Amino acid sequence: MAASLWLRGAASGLRYWSRRQRPAAASLAAVCSRSVASKTPVGFIGLGNMGNPMAKNLMKHGYPLVIYDVFPDACKEFREAGEQVVSSPADVAEKADRIITMLPTSMNAIEAYSGANGILKKVKKGSLLIDSSTIDPSVSKELAKEVEKMGAVFMDAPVSGGVGAARSGNLTFMVGGVEEEFAAAKELLGCMGSNVVYCGAVGTGQAAKICNNMLLAISMIGTAEAMNLGIRLGLDPKLLAKILNMSSGRCWSSDTYNPVPGVMDGVPSANNYQGGFGTTLMAKDLGLAQDSATNTKSPIFLGSQAHQIYRMMCAKGYSKKDFSSVFQFLREEETF
Amino acid sequence: MAASLWLRGAASGLRYWSRRQRPAAASLAAVCSRSVASKTPVGFIGLGNMGNPMAKNLMKHGYPLVIYDVFPDACKEFREAGEQVVSSPADVAEKADRIITMLPTSMNAIEAYSGANGILKKVKKGSLLIDSSTIDPSVSKELAKEVEKMGAVFMDAPVSGGVGAARSGNLTFMVGGVEEEFAAAKELLGCMGSNVVYCGAVGTGQAAKICNNMLLAISMIGTAEAMNLGIRLGLDPKLLAKILNMSSGRCWSSDTYNPVPGVMDGVPSANNYQGGFGTTLMAKDLGLAQDSATNTKSPIFLGSQAHQIYRMMCAKGYSKKDFSSVFQFLREEETF
Amino acid sequence: MAASLWLRGAASGLRYWSRRQRPAAASLAAVCSRSVASKTPVGFIGLGNMGNPMAKNLMKHGYPLVIYDVFPDACKEFREAGEQVVSSPADVAEKADRIITMLPTSMNAIEAYSGANGILKKVKKGSLLIDSSTIDPSVSKELAKEVEKMGAVFMDAPVSGGVGAARSGNLTFMVGGVEEEFAAAKELLGCMGSNVVYCGAVGTGQAAKICNNMLLAISMIGTAEAMNLGIRLGLDPKLLAKILNMSSGRCWSSDTYNPVPGVMDGVPSANNYQGGFGTTLMAKDLGLAQDSATNTKSPIFLGSQAHQIYRMMCAKGYSKKDFSSVFQFLREEETF
Amino acid sequence: MAASLWLRGAASGLRYWSRRQRPAAASLAAVCSRSVASKTPVGFIGLGNMGNPMAKNLMKHGYPLVIYDVFPDACKEFREAGEQVVSSPADVAEKADRIITMLPTSMNAIEAYSGANGILKKVKKGSLLIDSSTIDPSVSKELAKEVEKMGAVFMDAPVSGGVGAARSGNLTFMVGGVEEEFAAAKELLGCMGSNVVYCGAVGTGQAAKICNNMLLAISMIGTAEAMNLGIRLGLDPKLLAKILNMSSGRCWSSDTYNPVPGVMDGVPSANNYQGGFGTTLMAKDLGLAQDSATNTKSPIFLGSQAHQIYRMMCAKGYSKKDFSSVFQFLREEETF
Repeated sequence: MAASLWLRGAASGLRYWSRRQRPAAASLAAVCSRSVASKTPVGFIGLGNMGNPMAKNLMKHGYPLVIYDVFPDACKEFREAGEQVVSSPADVAEKADRIITMLPTSMNAIEAYSGANGILKKVKKGSLLIDSSTIDPSVSKELAKEVEKMGAVFMDAPVSGGVGAARSGNLTFMVGGVEEEFAAAKELLGCMGSNVVYCGAVGTGQAAKICNNMLLAISMIGTAEAMNLGIRLGLDPKLLAKILNMSSGRCWSSDTYNPVPGVMDGVPSANNYQGGFGTTLMAKDLGLAQDSATNTKSPIFLGSQAHQIYRMMCAKGYSKKDFSSVFQFLREEETF
Repeated sequence: MAASLWLRGAASGLRYWSRRQRPAAASLAAVCSRSVASKTPVGFIGLGNMGNPMAKNLMKHGYPLVIYDVFPDACKEFREAGEQVVSSPADVAEKADRIITMLPTSMNAIEAYSGANGILKKVKKGSLLIDSSTIDPSVSKELAKEVEKMGAVFMDAPVSGGVGAARSGNLTFMVGGVEEEFAAAKELLGCMGSNVVYCGAVGTGQAAKICNNMLLAISMIGTAEAMNLGIRLGLDPKLLAKILNMSSGRCWSSDTYNPVPGVMDGVPSANNYQGGFGTTLMAKDLGLAQDSATNTKSPIFLGSQAHQIYRMMCAKGYSKKDFSSVFQFLREEETF
Repeated sequence: MAASLWLRGAASGLRYWSRRQRPAAASLAAVCSRSVASKTPVGFIGLGNMGNPMAKNLMKHGYPLVIYDVFPDACKEFREAGEQVVSSPADVAEKADRIITMLPTSMNAIEAYSGANGILKKVKKGSLLIDSSTIDPSVSKELAKEVEKMGAVFMDAPVSGGVGAARSGNLTFMVGGVEEEFAAAKELLGCMGSNVVYCGAVGTGQAAKICNNMLLAISMIGTAEAMNLGIRLGLDPKLLAKILNMSSGRCWSSDTYNPVPGVMDGVPSANNYQGGFGTTLMAKDLGLAQDSATNTKSPIFLGSQAHQIYRMMCAKGYSKKDFSSVFQFLREEETF
Repeated sequence: MAASLWLRGAASGLRYWSRRQRPAAASLAAVCSRSVASKTPVGFIGLGNMGNPMAKNLMKHGYPLVIYDVFPDACKEFREAGEQVVSSPADVAEKADRIITMLPTSMNAIEAYSGANGILKKVKKGSLLIDSSTIDPSVSKELAKEVEKMGAVFMDAPVSGGVGAARSGNLTFMVGGVEEEFAAAKELLGCMGSNVVYCGAVGTGQAAKICNNMLLAISMIGTAEAMNLGIRLGLDPKLLAKILNMSSGRCWSSDTYNPVPGVMDGVPSANNYQGGFGTTLMAKDLGLAQDSATNTKSPIFLGSQAHQIYRMMCAKGYSKKDFSSVFQFLREEETF
C-alpha cells in the first residue's frame, strides 16, 4: 500500500512523530549521523521483501546490524556489506540489545521469540524488542508477557506502506507498548518510516492496523459495489465518483484510490490493477481482523463478509492484483 | 441528513449549480423577486414533512402555488396563505404547467401520475414535471415514458438533506432528465436547495442518491465495526478515530459523522443518536438499492448485508434513531 | 428441478392432492376421459419451455385448447394439432372461461392480464384464471384484485419441477386462492402435475415456492461450504456426507442432491453440473424472495447473501450449470 | 444438543459403532463387566458439566479413575466415591496410561498437555490420550505431534449431545487418529456414548463436528428466515413447515427441530427456547469453523455470516436460549 495511505495531513493531537510534518526533517539525518560513533548494533530478524529495505535504511543511518533469516540467502547481501550474520534468533539476542523482527505470520514470530533457538533463550535484561510483523494482537500480548518475564521490553510496531515505502523510508509504524519506551523505539523506527504513531498498550499497534485495514476493505468493496450499480443504472463513472466525493459516501477508496478504470490517474485501477496492495495481503489482514473479532466477541458483519470476498478473489485469480480489483471481480465477465 | 453531507467544497467539473459556491448568491433572490410579476403558478403535490417547507420556499421566491395533498389538513396552511388548493393531481395539472411532486413511495408517485385522477389525465403539452420523491429509478423511467407520450417533460430530482435543510433552502437536488430542460428545473429547485446537480438521463438522479446512500450505509457500518473492534482490542476511541482519519480507512462516517459517543461534538452520536438521518429512512433507501441491484443484476454483497442490518435495527427499536446508532446496536447490551 | 424435490412421502394433514399417493391414480385418467365429451376449452397463454409440455398434457387429458403466445412460432405446433390459436390474451378470454398463464416475469404477467389486449379486456364473469408463472406474490395479489372486480376468480399456482417433470406430468403446483375454487383448479392442474398443494389465500402459492427455494439455496450453499471446509480439513467427502446425513446438518442438499462430485450418483454433481435447476433460475427466485422480504420488512441475512452469491455465479460463467455448482464456485480454481 | 441429532437411522457403510444399532447392545455391558477385574485405571481431566457425567459412566462400567480438575471442588464427589484425585495432569499421566480430557477451550487443552505440569511431562510410552474437548483441529494436530514425540498416541474425539446425553451415556463421538487405535478408543468411548464414528486422521473428529455444526447453524437460520418470510407473506406456519418438509427446503432444522413456536411439540421452540443447544455454544463452534476456514483459506460466506448472527444474539440477551431462538431474534419485537 502506498505510504500515502497513512499520511493525510497533520492529525493534530496525535502523539506521533512524522518526518514529513517537520520542516526540520533533514535534521534527523544530522542527529542520526552525529550519533554514529556511539551506535550500538541493532539486531534484525527477517530479511524478506520488506525486512531487506528496512534493514538497509537502518544501515544508512549508521546502525551496525546483527542479522538472521531462516533463509541464508537472504543474509548474503548483508554479509557482503560487512554486517554480522548469525545463525539463530538467540544469537542475535546475545549480540544486540535492540532487535527488530519482521516476519510473515504469527507462527513465525512465536518461533523467533519462543522457539528452541529463539530470542528469549539469550535475551539480555533491558533489551528492546520491536516486532514489526503484522500478526494477531493476542499473540503480541503473549510475546510481551514472556519478554517481560526476562526483564526486557517488547513493542509491536506493524507497518503500513509497501515495498516502495520501505525502500524510501516512508513507512508508517503503529506502535503499541509501554509509553516510556516509545522514544527509544522511535529512534530506530524513524530511520525506516516517516510516521511513527503511538497507539497505547502492547497489541494496540496491531489493533490499529487491523481496524484500519478492515475498514479500508469494507469501504473499497462498498465503493466498487456503488460504482458498479451506478454505472449499470446509467451514470457516468467519473460523474458518479465526483458526486460521491462531494457527498456522504466519500471515502479514501472513492476519492484517492478509485477502483474504476478511467476515473483517476496514477492508481492501480488505471494500470490494470498492477502494483498497490495485493489481494492476498488484504485477505491475510482480514483473517487477523476475523480472529481478533472472534477472540473479543465483536460482531463484524461486513468485516467478515469482506474477508470472504477477498478470500474468494484469491481463489479466482486475483491474488496478485491490487485489492481495488474487487471492482473487476464484481463486473460481468462478458462486459469487462 | 445535514445538508453538509452533500456540500464538501467545489467539485470541479461537475455541471451543477450551487448557491453556496457563488459569492453572488444573493443575486438569486434579486433575480427571483425581479421576475415575480410574471411568475406563473407552480403545482405542488405532497405537502408532508419535506414538501411543506419546500413549497414555502417556493412561495418566498414569489411563486404562486397550486396545491394538492391526499390529506386535506396538509393543505390548510397554504389555503390560509392564499394559495390555490385543488382536489386532485389532475386538477393541479390543469392549472399549472410546472409541477413538483414530493411523495413517500414509488406507489404514491405512480398514483399521483397515472392514477384515475392523476396528473396525466389533464397534463398540458410542454409541462415540466419534477418528481423529488426518492423512488425506484425504474419507476422514474416508466413515468417519464408516459409523461413524454403526453408531450410533457419529466425529471427526477430526489433530495439530500433533511427537514432542516428543507426549511433553510439548503437541500441538494440530484437531477435526471433531458439536459436542455435542466436550466428550467434549476430555476425552481434553486429556490429550495443550495446544490442542484445534473446527473444524466431520467433515473440517474435517483441512481446517484441510491448509490451514495448505499455506500454511506456500508461505510457507516464499517466504521462502527472497526471502532468497536478497536475499542475491544484496547484502543482509545478518539485516538483510533484520528488514526483512521489520517489513513486509508478514512471516510465521511469516520471523519465527519463519527458514530462513537465522545469522539466528536455536534453529531448525533454526541446526542444519544437524536436527530440526523433516521434508521428507517436508511432502510428504505437500501431497499431501493436492493431493488435496483436485482433489476440490473448487480452483485451488492455488502449493500444487501447493510440492508439487512438496518432492517433488523428497525425491528429492534432503533427506527427513529440516527443511522449512526448502528455502533450502539453492535455493542454488548451489558456494556452500553 | 427434479419433481422428486417436492415429493417426499405423504405429508399427513396437508390439504393437497397427489396422484402418486393414491394407488387409484389410474382412475384419474378414467375420470378425465369419461368427461371428455363435455370438456369445454381451456385457454393457455405462454407456450415456452414449460408451457409447451404443460399444454400438451392438458390435450392428452382431452381438453380442447385456446392458445396464445407473443411468439407466433410457439403456437405453430398446436395449430397443426388442431387447437385454436388466437391473437391476444383478450381473445383467449373471449373463448375460454378457464385460462392458464405460464410466463417468465411479473411484467409479462401484468401485460397478459392488464395490458391493452389483456385478459381483463374480455374476461367473462365466473371465469377461472390460474397463473402458473413464478412472480412476486404482491403482483399476484394485485392481479387477483383486478380479476375479482370483473367477477372472475384468480389463483396463483407456481410450479416446482423442471422441463422433465412438465413433460411427464409430474409437476408440483403450490396453489393460492379462494379455497372453494381449489377443486376446480385441481381438475386442470392434476392433468399436468402429480402434486397439487393448497397453500391459502392468493399469493401464498408464490410465497410457498419462494420460501422453499430460498431455504434450498441457503442449505445448498451451506452444504457446499461445509463439504469444502471438511475436505480441506482432511475428511473424505463420502464419509463427511454420511456423517452429516446422520446428524443435525442433514438436509435435502446433503442427502439427496449432494453438490460434491463423487459422493452420489444420478445427481448433477455427478454429471459436471449438467441438467437440474439452473443457477439463473435460482438467482431469479432469490430476487423474488428479496423483493418480498423488502416489501414485508423481513430480515433475510442468509437469503440475501445467497442471492448475491448466485448473482455472482451468473456473472462468472455458471448461469447454465445446476445450482449445486456453487461447490465448484467455492473451490480454488487451481484445485478443481 | 439432543443425542438424537446424531442418531438418524443406520448410516450404512460408516465404520462406526453404535450401541443402538446393535440389538446385542446389552452384550457390551456384559463385555465390560466381564473385564472389570482386569481393568486398569483411566485418567480423566476436566470434570465440568460434561466431564462429570462422562466420568461417572466410565465408573459405572467398572473403570477405576485418576482424576484432575483445576477446580478442586469438581473432584470432591469423585474422591468421596473412592476414586484417586491427583494434583496435576502430569500426575494423571504418571498413574494412568489411558487418559480422557474434556476441556472448554483450545488454550485449556494446550495447558493440560504442554503446560508446566502437563500430561507430556510424565506421559508413559504407549499411552492412549483421547481429547474430547471441542477445539481447533489445528491445535489437535499440534498436540498429536507432541504426543507422538513421546511415544504415545493422541486421538481427538469431540462429542455431540449435551448434558442429558452425557448422563444417559448417549453421546456421539467423532474420532480422529490412527485407525489401528480406534478399537482401543472405542472401548472407553462406548461406555459414554452410543455412537462412536471413525472420521480419519487426527483432527478429523474436530473437523466433522465443526462442519456439521456450521451447516446446522446455516440451515437453522435459513429455516428461521424462510418461516418468518412465509408467515409475513400470509402462510400458516404449520402448513409452511409441512410444505418445506416434503420439498427441497427440507432439513433437520425444519423437520426435527422447527424453530417456530406452535409448529412442533417437544422441541425448544415449544418451550420458550429453554434447554437444547445454547446460542453461546453455537457461537463458539462457529468461531472454530471460522478459524479453520481462515487457516485453510476456505470461503465460508454463509458460515461467517451465521457466526456474526449468533455472536450478535449473544450480545442481545439470547446467550442462554436454544440456538433455534434465532427465529425470535428475527421477528419484530412488537409482534413477538
